[in-house]
Amino acid sequence: MEKHTLGNKDRYEILYNAVLESLKNEDQDRTRELIQDSHMADIAKIFEELDHEYKDLLFLFLDDEHAAYVLAELSSEEFFEYYSPLSIERKVSILDYIADDDIADILGEAPEELKNRLIKLLDEEEAAELTELMGYDEETAGGIMTKEFLSLEANMTVLRALDYLREFAPDAESVYYLYVIDNDGKLVGIVSLRQIIVASPMQKIGEIMNEKVIYARADTDQEEVANMVRDYDFLILPVVDSEDVLIGIITVDDVMDIIEEEATEDILKFAGTSEYDFEDYDDKVFSSVFYSVKSRLPWLIITIFGGILSSFVVSKFQNVLTLDTAIAFFMPLLAGMGGNVGTQSSTLTVRTLALKDLRGKDVGRLILQEMLVGLTVGIICSLIIAVVSILVNGQMILSIIVAIAMFANISTAAIIGTLVPLIFKKVGVDPAVASAPFITTTVDITGLFIYFSLALMLISRIS
Amino acid sequence: MEKHTLGNKDRYEILYNAVLESLKNEDQDRTRELIQDSHMADIAKIFEELDHEYKDLLFLFLDDEHAAYVLAELSSEEFFEYYSPLSIERKVSILDYIADDDIADILGEAPEELKNRLIKLLDEEEAAELTELMGYDEETAGGIMTKEFLSLEANMTVLRALDYLREFAPDAESVYYLYVIDNDGKLVGIVSLRQIIVASPMQKIGEIMNEKVIYARADTDQEEVANMVRDYDFLILPVVDSEDVLIGIITVDDVMDIIEEEATEDILKFAGTSEYDFEDYDDKVFSSVFYSVKSRLPWLIITIFGGILSSFVVSKFQNVLTLDTAIAFFMPLLAGMGGNVGTQSSTLTVRTLALKDLRGKDVGRLILQEMLVGLTVGIICSLIIAVVSILVNGQMILSIIVAIAMFANISTAAIIGTLVPLIFKKVGVDPAVASAPFITTTVDITGLFIYFSLALMLISRIS
Repeated sequence: MEKHTLGNKDRYEILYNAVLESLKNEDQDRTRELIQDSHMADIAKIFEELDHEYKDLLFLFLDDEHAAYVLAELSSEEFFEYYSPLSIERKVSILDYIADDDIADILGEAPEELKNRLIKLLDEEEAAELTELMGYDEETAGGIMTKEFLSLEANMTVLRALDYLREFAPDAESVYYLYVIDNDGKLVGIVSLRQIIVASPMQKIGEIMNEKVIYARADTDQEEVANMVRDYDFLILPVVDSEDVLIGIITVDDVMDIIEEEATEDILKFAGTSEYDFEDYDDKVFSSVFYSVKSRLPWLIITIFGGILSSFVVSKFQNVLTLDTAIAFFMPLLAGMGGNVGTQSSTLTVRTLALKDLRGKDVGRLILQEMLVGLTVGIICSLIIAVVSILVNGQMILSIIVAIAMFANISTAAIIGTLVPLIFKKVGVDPAVASAPFITTTVDITGLFIYFSLALMLISRIS
Repeated sequence: MEKHTLGNKDRYEILYNAVLESLKNEDQDRTRELIQDSHMADIAKIFEELDHEYKDLLFLFLDDEHAAYVLAELSSEEFFEYYSPLSIERKVSILDYIADDDIADILGEAPEELKNRLIKLLDEEEAAELTELMGYDEETAGGIMTKEFLSLEANMTVLRALDYLREFAPDAESVYYLYVIDNDGKLVGIVSLRQIIVASPMQKIGEIMNEKVIYARADTDQEEVANMVRDYDFLILPVVDSEDVLIGIITVDDVMDIIEEEATEDILKFAGTSEYDFEDYDDKVFSSVFYSVKSRLPWLIITIFGGILSSFVVSKFQNVLTLDTAIAFFMPLLAGMGGNVGTQSSTLTVRTLALKDLRGKDVGRLILQEMLVGLTVGIICSLIIAVVSILVNGQMILSIIVAIAMFANISTAAIIGTLVPLIFKKVGVDPAVASAPFITTTVDITGLFIYFSLALMLISRIS
């Protein structure tokens, strides 16, 4: 092993540059050597980051196992770009190295013809399993599970179990926990490889197994699956069908991707770009511009109509504006503050809803708390703006109007920002839709109405 | 095992209600039975969600192992609330069940006195390990690793390794992968339990191990650790010191929490509530209101001063406003659209930066793409607003001004939203700081300037 003198990032950078260099120099021996000496995940990452011409070149140097690792990470389109030209023998051999859940993902998006051609390369049993996997919704437990797992029977002895594992283990994705089934294939327990090793050889698996198994059903949503794995610190989670028959397992590495995915989805929803698929961000510039525009426009169009509503509100108060055009100066300030406080409250509420199940009393607590925060922040900010405004422009009445409006805006924004996601959740709408654009627009309209009503009351009385 | 007829959420709800019921009825046998029959993670979650009085009651029923599981999840303050009143014997016994990295986390926030008292309960070796763990920054590999792991020596035979595991495995947090060290304790390889089981008994560990080990250093940032575990699909990651000596391991379950944490941190930063600590959200209402206000105010105060700047910009154009107060009607619309597009672009850029290392060409791609998106969205939205505005208010010139300003605003917003995080990253500032409030404020000021300049040019010429 090389000397450990570098952090992982530096190590990777050096490797990336070395591979790029060897490809540029057409130094075949060096390229082969670098590939053989590196972790497959590094090669896959390098492949992903290289320019197209070097990608093609690097792919030529990959042995079947490396090629499988690299291909498994690609989008369906790119997969077939590299896979289709290969010889039948190589195709079969590479396919052997790719996990069935990864193949199912790739085929999920592929044209029917390519799909059928690839399935023909598999033996009958594998083909049947793959077809089963593709039958599940991609975002459920069935869609992310693998069928490559070993299970033990409850009436096996430890000795036989170990022999069985010695024979079949190298093929299974994970043998660290083993599920135990009865004669009907129903899940009845779980046993760790550790428990098997420390048990005495003639004990029955049924005696040493743990009967408290937590499992997902094939149609359990992937977000719930991720929460289960996280909450229970599982490395794998079994999946059963409606008859309790064990049909697959989900491994923690797939779950990590889901956690990251769901968090990204939430973040992007907040920013009002619906269901953005990050993978699509990589392909050609124009198609991704098209995709990006499509995913952003809906919220922007809602914002336009919200904005038109705002302009109606303002137009109703045109006479106030005519009395003192200086009122317009503070519109951006008030809208900005309301929008920000509303976004803060809604983000916090949405995130709280995503991370924990709130019970009745918690909901009350949350609302009370956000109201208090809104009042406190409102008081502080309105005092700041009152002082600054009087010092800078000297207009006493206008400054007081702005300060009161600020206070009212911030308090309502905090309440709206908290209530809207809670109500959405209650009526079964995804609370993350109560995103920045939605809250900002709502708060904008309320805020303008408050500000101009106040101005109307105070200014027209004084004038 | 019970019949599997329920999803996990329903199963949990039923259990929660049953436990609450048994506590309310003071049905001790039922409570004990429920605890014994349940997964420890469920009991820990129920404990977390119960009201204070039932919490205290439930804690009385927990055996040492369950109590340890529950306590390990608590904040430092709550931990000592339940732990301090216990007898010395129970304290020692419970402590035995808690992983050292969890103890280190709890003690990290505890007062010196409680810390010392707890460390005295440990034997010498454990105390030394714990003190070492507490010495690392909480957000580095050293701060999240555990010292409870087994390693094998390269010159052990497989037979001896299995014996060794049989004897010591039940204590270690994970024995599914084992790191191999040389005589100086330096990390030289990795071997999976699977490889050991399938090897022939007299082979040396050094012969069957894999020499390509990817590892973290004690001071590697936790976010990089999480990325490594995710990218390489590791279940555990070894941690070495500056001498390459193996000093700990990080397990995937701790990493999942970090991924969730970092994503939440990013989401909240976007919303402009800096470094919000979700744990603190649970305690008393007033202290959490205080904490919340403190974490939100900085961005709001920046927004105030941004808003004051905006009001200066508008005030410079007061004469235009006096010419036609209707100009004010569209200020919220334009500000809202600019803000939303800016937030979309900055969110996408920040998220892209978080998920992948962008190289020079990728940065160029991203900027080009966002510019094109900005132009496209700008054209579409300005056409919509032109048509609507002409239809609704019939003011041709104003409608044209608004449409042009809309186009200019959206395009600049997209560019600002993309460039600011990239520049922040370049100069070493966390790009997630380029959050909604910051971008909104910047885009607001630019947008108002564009709008009023246009209005000045067109309206005053016509008048």
